[in-house]
Amino acid sequence: MFITFEGIEGTGKSTQIARVRDYFESQGREVFLTLEPGGSRIGRELRKMLLHVDNREITPITELFLYLADRAQHVGQVIRPELEAGKVVLCDRFADSTIVYQGYGRGLDTAMLRELNEVAVDGLWPDLTIVLDIDPEIGLKRATLRNIEDGKAKEEGRFEAEHISFHNKIREGYLTWAAFNRERMKVIDASSTPDGVFEQVRAVIQAFGGDAD
Amino acid sequence: MFITFEGIEGTGKSTQIARVRDYFESQGREVFLTLEPGGSRIGRELRKMLLHVDNREITPITELFLYLADRAQHVGQVIRPELEAGKVVLCDRFADSTIVYQGYGRGLDTAMLRELNEVAVDGLWPDLTIVLDIDPEIGLKRATLRNIEDGKAKEEGRFEAEHISFHNKIREGYLTWAAFNRERMKVIDASSTPDGVFEQVRAVIQAFGGDAD
Repeated sequence: MFITFEGIEGTGKSTQIARVRDYFESQGREVFLTLEPGGSRIGRELRKMLLHVDNREITPITELFLYLADRAQHVGQVIRPELEAGKVVLCDRFADSTIVYQGYGRGLDTAMLRELNEVAVDGLWPDLTIVLDIDPEIGLKRATLRNIEDGKAKEEGRFEAEHISFHNKIREGYLTWAAFNRERMKVIDASSTPDGVFEQVRAVIQAFGGDAD
Repeated sequence: MFITFEGIEGTGKSTQIARVRDYFESQGREVFLTLEPGGSRIGRELRKMLLHVDNREITPITELFLYLADRAQHVGQVIRPELEAGKVVLCDRFADSTIVYQGYGRGLDTAMLRELNEVAVDGLWPDLTIVLDIDPEIGLKRATLRNIEDGKAKEEGRFEAEHISFHNKIREGYLTWAAFNRERMKVIDASSTPDGVFEQVRAVIQAFGGDAD
């Protein structure tokens, strides 16, 4: 079972992914946690290029191809082997991020992006995608607080440096894209407590059949 | 005017590019020399990843996207501005290398590669492409000799490490692809001396209208 987690910064993806891991492990399942960009050795080199503030010279199309390169390597070298080994794979961001950030966010053609994603994922789409939804004003406050707590306030990432209107476009992009993919993508209100959000996430996973009971 | 140079290793691309530069400069034209992969700052980081022997773990699709990222950045940040500044741009390898190496060489679908190239070049196709053609046995001997002269015999690149049958596929790929694009791609016999080859290259450029006289 391959589950991906999507949403803007500060929706609490990491927290929910950790809980979903605990949930599956409590059922005796082996879980593999991964993320994009940076889920493979080569991907980690690409991630550094992509997330570094100094690389603002990267054109939108270059950025797109770097994310696709990261994804292709991640699928071929990591995700597919882990699934074939029988594990539950939980991935923080995947192909939908490209549609939403490069398409709805940066204005690239979403039909073209779907075709490029098809090449990158090479047939391997998630079984289920959890979209954590929150007002960007709240999400960014959370992300900023987290960075300060982590002592990395100065290393504010490229995306967090974008204007609030960009994050609003991204949020709307996720909601629109999820509406086109209702079977696979489930939108969850991430504005409540971690416990409250996880109740909803668990319900979605159980409804999907991810319950060993 | 945007001219690209294609061909397997050891065809003498660098030598011919230098001569074409001299030819245009003798006519008072400003010339900008560049290459792929590695024609931009970000491209040079990607080039290191692509040409390093240790990166054999790169999947064919990842490799493809990295070349496309390099190309998108090269076109957007370097080639288009140089052309707009009125220069003749001479480029060592470009979009045709992707069709030939990833398509005819590694077996990826050439129709798909054409579409991906369209995204990467963003409308900017070469006015003229010179394909230097040689028997791979001769070309690889030349490339090996050159590496020894340069004192880098041990740093044999990833492509030069491929078996001769791969290079034969590439040569045939270039001839096939050039036959589909006769207007733009001109195949030149590169087996003679640098002077002899340049006579043919100059004739092609003059026939194309690259003569200021």
